[in-house]
Amino acid sequence: MPLSEFEVIRRYFMEATAVREDILLGVGDDAALLRTGSTESLALCMDTMVAGVHFPDDAPPETIGYKALAVNLSDLAAMGARPAWALLALTVPNVEEGWLVAFSAGFYRLARMHDVALVGGDTTRGPLAVTINAAGWVDEGLALRRSGARPGDGIYVTGTLGDAALGLRLWRSGQGDVDEHARQLVERLHRPVPRVRMGRAVLGIASAAIDISDCLCADLGHILKQSGVGAVIESGRLPLSAAMLAKCRGGEARHLALTGGDDYELCLTAAPAVEAALVSVAATSDVPLTRIGRIEAQPGLRILAIDGRPLSLDRFGFDHFGSGAP
Amino acid sequence: MPLSEFEVIRRYFMEATAVREDILLGVGDDAALLRTGSTESLALCMDTMVAGVHFPDDAPPETIGYKALAVNLSDLAAMGARPAWALLALTVPNVEEGWLVAFSAGFYRLARMHDVALVGGDTTRGPLAVTINAAGWVDEGLALRRSGARPGDGIYVTGTLGDAALGLRLWRSGQGDVDEHARQLVERLHRPVPRVRMGRAVLGIASAAIDISDCLCADLGHILKQSGVGAVIESGRLPLSAAMLAKCRGGEARHLALTGGDDYELCLTAAPAVEAALVSVAATSDVPLTRIGRIEAQPGLRILAIDGRPLSLDRFGFDHFGSGAP
Repeated sequence: MPLSEFEVIRRYFMEATAVREDILLGVGDDAALLRTGSTESLALCMDTMVAGVHFPDDAPPETIGYKALAVNLSDLAAMGARPAWALLALTVPNVEEGWLVAFSAGFYRLARMHDVALVGGDTTRGPLAVTINAAGWVDEGLALRRSGARPGDGIYVTGTLGDAALGLRLWRSGQGDVDEHARQLVERLHRPVPRVRMGRAVLGIASAAIDISDCLCADLGHILKQSGVGAVIESGRLPLSAAMLAKCRGGEARHLALTGGDDYELCLTAAPAVEAALVSVAATSDVPLTRIGRIEAQPGLRILAIDGRPLSLDRFGFDHFGSGAP
Repeated sequence: MPLSEFEVIRRYFMEATAVREDILLGVGDDAALLRTGSTESLALCMDTMVAGVHFPDDAPPETIGYKALAVNLSDLAAMGARPAWALLALTVPNVEEGWLVAFSAGFYRLARMHDVALVGGDTTRGPLAVTINAAGWVDEGLALRRSGARPGDGIYVTGTLGDAALGLRLWRSGQGDVDEHARQLVERLHRPVPRVRMGRAVLGIASAAIDISDCLCADLGHILKQSGVGAVIESGRLPLSAAMLAKCRGGEARHLALTGGDDYELCLTAAPAVEAALVSVAATSDVPLTRIGRIEAQPGLRILAIDGRPLSLDRFGFDHFGSGAP
């Protein structure tokens, strides 16, 4: 019987190897938080992208270099951390100069935007895969964790959801370039925007955060589990892009928003008392922030259809073995 | 025309993405050195092991978990750093519980020995590969770099050389278990001992250091290039194990010591004035340290046969595209 990804990690890699007093937060969040003697905590994360699993085999190399860094900066964003350095482990089947030029251009394009310096890594021969380790800094005590959600908190997401999943569908069917909407959706798949600024802006306001890599249901589920709470999502509130609505009916769009992966938006929770502060932060940002539900004491995730009735999804995201941060 | 690994890294990944004043040493040594506000520098490294490239497809999973961490701790050892934390990115084709139990046992066995805590990572589906990011601490200003060798310095290596290369040959030919010598050589292949204690002990004494992952000639070559010097190695001084000498003639043994990979011993340089201090450190250690040559001003690596005549090797290690830290 195959184990789910979460089980794999829990069983074999949460064993205490060494009890170190410099560990503020270990395995199990978007990044580890470590004490260094600085007034800030060091945030360390590492994500792998494997060809054919995390990006299409025919993805443009520029987008692979970009996205491999983006998914790691998204993990730092979900802690509220300010990125600093990256290490790159690149495994390629052979050396193609044109491929490397494009790959590194994508990587550096995003690195420059966030003042991230590449400081090391490894280059190996093998099936195409990219692992990036990103490091950043966050005020000790303020860092956003998955475990801080409390009953009564509102649930918020940045941007729009489901676009990348639809973009992947269009890309795979050769429809990725048929019109402007399709191109926008494919762009969302290939070049997710890590919400670094938003993550930092909500420090001290949000009670919990995670980035949506697998899908809203699965990733919000991590917050619920680690916070020991449940939630209600009103699916009529899910933020959907114009491109999505031009390509899908509402019901399918909402299903994609709940269960589609790869958007790399943030899912936040915040107490009602700070909702005004959160709205104010969002207003000064160029990223929409939408309230989609609330945290409840009763465990489990309940989803309401647009008419308010409980919705049953055939598939609550994928707690699969293919992707995602532990 | 295929580029060598070194060229790949130099061309595409040493571009300045961000000039950050917190970088003491970036791409190009065994680990990066970073300023954190602590009195020590943070050392960060990352190495990938791909099945069939860096370990045999049929290597026992316990040895894969052990070795993936060992090669990274060896990089920290080559900086003189004290290991602290690790992140693990594990890519496996499928979830086999027995495999994971053994893999993690190997990982944790070594982690415990060095007080290393696993603090995060990623688990993905794909062709078997392991990437580990290791972090440690070293006194600012004392860290061992590749660039510090000066003419007149002695060249030293820890332990014995060539064992892992011969172990691999025996393993591949099904001779890995024929006798105690064979088992010792295979053990050296599967379970290299990172010279963490020795690396820390020679801080302030050694002028340069690197770990021998590709082979002595290639890795010493990095010291020579980055220090702007040359060297002479007296092959009659190369430390060879009893197991090696039981399996090989002297000439072949010395060839393996010069050009075989995977030993993960340290290669150090030190000024003549501190040779007594170095000998004293080695005497209190349980790891032999052998002087094998000297640094010279004239660029290039010259190897002397046991009769003192210049030796010509058909293959100076492998500046290949398969392995090694940048």
